Amino acid sequence: MSSRAGLRVERRAAASGGPWVVPQRGAEPHAVTSMPDFWSWWDERGRAGAFCVESLPWSRLDRWSFDPTTGNLGHDSGRFFTVEGLRARRPGLPDFTQPVIHQPEIGILGILFKEFDGVLHCLMQAKMEPGNINTLQLSPTVQATRSNYTQVHRGAPTRHLEHFVRPGHGEVLVDVLQSEQGGWFWRKRNRNMVVLATREVTPSEDHIWLSLGQVYELLQVENLVNMDARTVLSCLPLALPDEHEVTGDGYAEALARSYGDLADGREGGALRRAGEVRSWLTDAKTRCDWDARLVPLSKVTGWSCTDDEISDDTGSRFRIVAVQVEARTREVTRWSQPLLAPREPAEAVLVTRIVDGVLHALVRAKPEYGLVDLVEMAPTVHRRSGAEEPGELDEALVGVGATRFDSVLSEEGGRFWRALTRYRITEVGEEVPVDLPPDYCWVTARQVTNLLRHGHYLNVEARTLMACLHSLW
Amino acid sequence: MSSRAGLRVERRAAASGGPWVVPQRGAEPHAVTSMPDFWSWWDERGRAGAFCVESLPWSRLDRWSFDPTTGNLGHDSGRFFTVEGLRARRPGLPDFTQPVIHQPEIGILGILFKEFDGVLHCLMQAKMEPGNINTLQLSPTVQATRSNYTQVHRGAPTRHLEHFVRPGHGEVLVDVLQSEQGGWFWRKRNRNMVVLATREVTPSEDHIWLSLGQVYELLQVENLVNMDARTVLSCLPLALPDEHEVTGDGYAEALARSYGDLADGREGGALRRAGEVRSWLTDAKTRCDWDARLVPLSKVTGWSCTDDEISDDTGSRFRIVAVQVEARTREVTRWSQPLLAPREPAEAVLVTRIVDGVLHALVRAKPEYGLVDLVEMAPTVHRRSGAEEPGELDEALVGVGATRFDSVLSEEGGRFWRALTRYRITEVGEEVPVDLPPDYCWVTARQVTNLLRHGHYLNVEARTLMACLHSLW
Repeated sequence: MSSRAGLRVERRAAASGGPWVVPQRGAEPHAVTSMPDFWSWWDERGRAGAFCVESLPWSRLDRWSFDPTTGNLGHDSGRFFTVEGLRARRPGLPDFTQPVIHQPEIGILGILFKEFDGVLHCLMQAKMEPGNINTLQLSPTVQATRSNYTQVHRGAPTRHLEHFVRPGHGEVLVDVLQSEQGGWFWRKRNRNMVVLATREVTPSEDHIWLSLGQVYELLQVENLVNMDARTVLSCLPLALPDEHEVTGDGYAEALARSYGDLADGREGGALRRAGEVRSWLTDAKTRCDWDARLVPLSKVTGWSCTDDEISDDTGSRFRIVAVQVEARTREVTRWSQPLLAPREPAEAVLVTRIVDGVLHALVRAKPEYGLVDLVEMAPTVHRRSGAEEPGELDEALVGVGATRFDSVLSEEGGRFWRALTRYRITEVGEEVPVDLPPDYCWVTARQVTNLLRHGHYLNVEARTLMACLHSLW
Repeated sequence: MSSRAGLRVERRAAASGGPWVVPQRGAEPHAVTSMPDFWSWWDERGRAGAFCVESLPWSRLDRWSFDPTTGNLGHDSGRFFTVEGLRARRPGLPDFTQPVIHQPEIGILGILFKEFDGVLHCLMQAKMEPGNINTLQLSPTVQATRSNYTQVHRGAPTRHLEHFVRPGHGEVLVDVLQSEQGGWFWRKRNRNMVVLATREVTPSEDHIWLSLGQVYELLQVENLVNMDARTVLSCLPLALPDEHEVTGDGYAEALARSYGDLADGREGGALRRAGEVRSWLTDAKTRCDWDARLVPLSKVTGWSCTDDEISDDTGSRFRIVAVQVEARTREVTRWSQPLLAPREPAEAVLVTRIVDGVLHALVRAKPEYGLVDLVEMAPTVHRRSGAEEPGELDEALVGVGATRFDSVLSEEGGRFWRALTRYRITEVGEEVPVDLPPDYCWVTARQVTNLLRHGHYLNVEARTLMACLHSLW
């Protein structure tokens, strides 16, 4: 079957070495690290760090306090983040308020790539975050807020940072600002980067080289590959090589065709042209006439603050809590901070369907109060505790089809306490029609990867599901 | 000279008729309306409307009032826009505050295109706005806020709106949200649309068909083509046809090559690849660590409110004033509203240079408090009364080169009182080096038109200058 040849990673320059091809599952060529060696290293990193995370009352938070005027929770330095109020005016509906995390500075989420024997490898990090359910997760090479890497907290320098902040160190394959949870963050953006190293790199003891195929394989392991790694991987510009002909009619072949060329004005097997997809999203943004803004935390109604948590009176949404952290393998060994703790795991489902031989994914234009443009493309269904009741169509869409991917993965452990989402990709047939209400749109993998060169198109859950879709290759 | 053949308007579908070619200046084929006929119609429209705009004290504003708690100025209906406060935290600098116009709803700026005898025409409107220096300006087919077209103010329906809100009426060539003045608006976005009509259209008496070349020609006339028309025209996806070979070495030939294909990974004569340009902007955004937000107008310091204006105590920035309007050729014949009145005309300059036979424009990554991502690409130099002092480099860049375009054009007359900008495009040589500080980047026309398929890349002054650059064709 000729689709075995693999996908191409698109490069900006036609330099020597490459285009690399991402091999299909089960056809992984030689990786620098064997999977047994990876797991030994992983266990060893877990033992090497003594991590202790415990809950605190607000009064014992070090250098964090509530502002007497606004009630906002912030750090003495004025950096890191604050917990403030969000208010949304929605014509015809009562005002909506909730606490929200506000972090104006832009951090770097960067994965360093390098070619070994013609195979692309990622430098992954075993990184502890206080909110992680299992302490350590497999993280990007660099995951640092500006406060981190400009060393506001006076910790050790961020390792391997030089590849992402100094020009001339390698070739930049991905460099784009992307949003994060619009229900929990106020207009948060992080800089997603992939840099191809052209010189020798000596990994720190917390870093390891894994092939791209191995990282994809590890996405199947629950709560292992962290959110930041997933969003960076989702932005990788994968494409079917131009001269590549796909034969056969299975899911793998339809997926391969989904990465085929779809430039504006050309057909390429997509149900909707690229310009139509953008126009569909523009229309959805125009229809959303919410006015969301930051307000003092003291103006949030329906939420209460006790000695050790801020929580919604219905007990259905989330809590803000404080933790103290002691760690041996992070830049700073001891600190305390607030975290947002959701009540229950969420569920995110991406419905896919083969239409005329090409795999299409069903995305939904969904408004979230904390997003810059309010509306981005979301998974087909995203159910979260305390959010609006799922509609009949949601119920129908999660209940059909064959499961192609199914794994519980964690959201950002640096800001969220044990925030888990069950991510599923399903395959449906004609029981889900092509024509659906105007919030929905069928898109190909190539259309999505083209949009991910730009920010504000796919929300973070949809990006995780795109990384998972790549892994089905 | 083979470049005379013209630029192509890129279409999504390979439907019959087209691709149309935009002819070079001076080679305009038959237009439906002759220029003398246009000017007769224009004079007649001016005489047909009895317009009267007069200043008011706040107390005489109808249905507008200051909120007793926040001091914000708003309309009883809660729609249209408000005048609120903006506060920016800038590490190492004192807080910055000013009044700002907040208009969360997204309006439509749409130009209807139609082919007559193989020539593309635009349906332009003679439209009155209260802040216009000359009352009437040449405006898009439709220019309507959501409040307008959902008829909150109970006026007449917006004419020709059906082409932009109902699917199936023609082919959408442009559909993208773009920012407006980041120094005066809070995160304002409008929907820029070009729709190609496929059926018969009967223009209203305020509308006229002009060829694209005629509209470009009219950009040279002071204060005629309005800001909304310019931003829509800037988004038109113009490209040099693939098979087209440019010969010669003048400005026109270098401009033609600037529209040549520059897809990622290909060279095409651009100094920086498309991915590098995006990465350059991402880097500039990351370096800006301002935190801007809305605050109550009463919290703005250094500004005072009298009976009839809000103005900065230094008298250098702008005023907020109130006007009463009587008009016969608008949907509503009488209303009052606030307007923002700048102190002096501004100046915006786009420096261009031929590098290796291809025209490059010098854009600047410039933060403005009211922009969604804070930083967008701005003209090479933008000098505005009361803004930060121009630097030495600004002075040097406006002082060199030959002038290729020079016209005073108006900013949005629906929100601003006589806001004029002198727009200039200059051509420089080796006296302006290719290597400049990291805020600057040389880009080709094709790179910019590709970015204008997406929002948040070019600010509104840079977009006006792109429309002017198109007109030099």
